[in-house]
Amino acid sequence: MTVAIAYLGPTGTNSETAALVYANWLAQNKGQKAILYPYPSIALAIRSVVQQETDLAVVPVENSIEGSVASTLDILWQLEEIEIIQGLILPIAHALLSCGSSLEQIVTVYSHPQALAQCQKWLERYLPSIELVPTNSTTEALHYLKDNPTAGAIASPRASELYQIPILRNYINDYPDNCTRFWILGLTSNEHGSHLSLAFSLPENIPGALVKPLQVFAQRGINMSKIESRPTKRSLGEYIFFIDIEGNLNDPSIQNALAELSRYTEELKIFGNYDVWQSAARGLKIENG
Amino acid sequence: MTVAIAYLGPTGTNSETAALVYANWLAQNKGQKAILYPYPSIALAIRSVVQQETDLAVVPVENSIEGSVASTLDILWQLEEIEIIQGLILPIAHALLSCGSSLEQIVTVYSHPQALAQCQKWLERYLPSIELVPTNSTTEALHYLKDNPTAGAIASPRASELYQIPILRNYINDYPDNCTRFWILGLTSNEHGSHLSLAFSLPENIPGALVKPLQVFAQRGINMSKIESRPTKRSLGEYIFFIDIEGNLNDPSIQNALAELSRYTEELKIFGNYDVWQSAARGLKIENG
Repeated sequence: MTVAIAYLGPTGTNSETAALVYANWLAQNKGQKAILYPYPSIALAIRSVVQQETDLAVVPVENSIEGSVASTLDILWQLEEIEIIQGLILPIAHALLSCGSSLEQIVTVYSHPQALAQCQKWLERYLPSIELVPTNSTTEALHYLKDNPTAGAIASPRASELYQIPILRNYINDYPDNCTRFWILGLTSNEHGSHLSLAFSLPENIPGALVKPLQVFAQRGINMSKIESRPTKRSLGEYIFFIDIEGNLNDPSIQNALAELSRYTEELKIFGNYDVWQSAARGLKIENG
Repeated sequence: MTVAIAYLGPTGTNSETAALVYANWLAQNKGQKAILYPYPSIALAIRSVVQQETDLAVVPVENSIEGSVASTLDILWQLEEIEIIQGLILPIAHALLSCGSSLEQIVTVYSHPQALAQCQKWLERYLPSIELVPTNSTTEALHYLKDNPTAGAIASPRASELYQIPILRNYINDYPDNCTRFWILGLTSNEHGSHLSLAFSLPENIPGALVKPLQVFAQRGINMSKIESRPTKRSLGEYIFFIDIEGNLNDPSIQNALAELSRYTEELKIFGNYDVWQSAARGLKIENG
């Protein structure tokens, strides 16, 4: 069986690296071959799974510097069928790619807004008066480099190899511990694993409405590793809360907590029970599956 | 005395509209004349106040559809001196501007990523196969329209007047109640008003560490209108929590709550005690001060 995996393309993005890590695991542990399909947005990658064009989607959820990826959370709340199958944490390295031979030549730097933000201090220090131009992906930024030695792009060291564009400066990210958390999404429920992601809206905007839902977990000693609010889009000041806890759906204490939680919430969605893998080194080597 | 106000430029952005509303209020109520200065980023607008190049900065904090403006929160946490003087809620209307005469001609639409996201459903429905290109501001998108009838830009109806570019479709935002909350920042403390914004980091990532800080407000019946987490940037899973409450710093119950709160937090910052104005109508008319 061949597994079709959707990711935020094109080739050379960090989402593709995450998809390759998972494809490699499928090959080694399940003897399954995977084919990767690039999509132009996170929304389209996830919808391709719902519409059964693909089997899985690999999407970024959170970066250690820039925070949550709002579009991933918003789409997950809107869709009914989709489940989190696996979490994956990847180290992120940024390099300045250019066909020019020195920093002094550069007048414009292209990249995805998150990559520009993650190298903000480096840019302010070494290229203080250049123009920053946002693009839809780190790879798209590379289109501007050809035949133009005054243009630079922030992309992964891997993109340099793939597109044969030299690295002018490596490891330019402001924080060395820069990593991104990805989710592998599919239609089949997992129902085992160490992490549980859920989201809820609250019936009323009353004092401390959020305290009771949080106490449900605190009273049972269940660790909450993340809380994030996103607007309901109905009116300013109404939120959906996204929470990650450590636990398993087969554990009676977790089942109990979720039953109590549903009494305080307006709508409650469980996105899946899954394990999280952490890729260790900066110079992560991936065998293309 | 002339007041220098920094905003995320250029002319025609929603931040400029918010700055004009405040300038108009200063003229009518304090007899003060204001001069507006556009800055290329939120960070530079805020830093211009700290460096005393300007007196005030008008920055977006939160949109009802897209959620918090991460860069505003991150910079506020980093700076010591800056205070929130006033909150301002503005309705946001998006229009498709183009020199072309029909939707069928359009092949590319330019705009700020937040504006593209706020019109996502409209774009999927009426322009499903075009290319979307992100820009640094809604106004910057207008640069691509000249002499090109196949290009469109999402910007405010006011930008259409300012830059003399026709509106091809008006009110294309997906949600009618689209509004953005702005903060007016300065160096002088206010210490009165109905809203209080603060942020804190927690000493340890222990089960329910967030419950105690939230209980401080809930037990006293203090309404918490907003909670938002941002990464500390030190390591994945460590957060700074931004909270908005309703209350006044002179109220003993608020003083008491903040004293108790400081016992549970690692670092606690109070950004200001201020009032919030709401601009009523879509077709808000502003007299340039």
